[in-house]
Amino acid sequence: MKLYLEDLSVGQVFHAGPQTLTAEAIIAFAREFDPQPFHTDPVAAAAHPVFHGHCASGWHTAALTMRMLVQAVGDLGWGVVGGGGSDLSWLRPVRPSDALRVEVKVLELIPSRSRADRGTAVIRSRTLNQRDEEVQVFTSRLVVPRRPHGAG
Amino acid sequence: MKLYLEDLSVGQVFHAGPQTLTAEAIIAFAREFDPQPFHTDPVAAAAHPVFHGHCASGWHTAALTMRMLVQAVGDLGWGVVGGGGSDLSWLRPVRPSDALRVEVKVLELIPSRSRADRGTAVIRSRTLNQRDEEVQVFTSRLVVPRRPHGAG
Repeated sequence: MKLYLEDLSVGQVFHAGPQTLTAEAIIAFAREFDPQPFHTDPVAAAAHPVFHGHCASGWHTAALTMRMLVQAVGDLGWGVVGGGGSDLSWLRPVRPSDALRVEVKVLELIPSRSRADRGTAVIRSRTLNQRDEEVQVFTSRLVVPRRPHGAG
Repeated sequence: MKLYLEDLSVGQVFHAGPQTLTAEAIIAFAREFDPQPFHTDPVAAAAHPVFHGHCASGWHTAALTMRMLVQAVGDLGWGVVGGGGSDLSWLRPVRPSDALRVEVKVLELIPSRSRADRGTAVIRSRTLNQRDEEVQVFTSRLVVPRRPHGAG
């Protein structure tokens, strides 16, 4: 079912996950996009003064969060279309075997002034591990269509 | 060569790329992390009211930007360690065959008050396509070690 701006409400919460990471997936992502030893080499990672062990690229966590967001929210009329966001923070390392889940809360719903067919949903995503610790938070803007006249 | 906080200067600019995307790479990333038809299906994408054609997931652009950032900046003592950032914006769709490059500018250098061994570098990355149009901008915080006493 397609969701329109009118179907969302401020304070509404969506859930998705869990999604479990493996060391192999962490290494594969990092080799392609973030080729640094603390992501690609578990042995070298153990000596890292910030991470103290093997951990996922923050962009891997962000990409998995997007995957879960698409699952959580479903189809916002035009899909889940993000224009970007603010306050992207990686708060804790994500380790092999961590099971991540996402909680998404609708913060604001803003009809466009210039384009009657759309609006912006401001959402806050919290990505949590299996101990319910935040590993990533992100406030982002989604482009959401308004319900066409006559659409059910 | 390892770079320390003292080796960076406000206004310094790093360059990397280009990195060319293919339709196949766009589809492969999207199937794993952003499974929506405007990223996974070039035919369906042509009818999308926002994108009007096949385009990469914003997170794919972000991940490629990270890859280029690692190439551009080299080793900041502990690697390129990001804590997150603000103002992540995707300004234009990234299309198959686009050649992306990155310009990174150092905005601020802030020694830590509580930990004498490190500081924060605030950087602004601009990801540009082959027409020098911005496709993504991001202001982020990197954790950078200070030069140890006696280190050359």
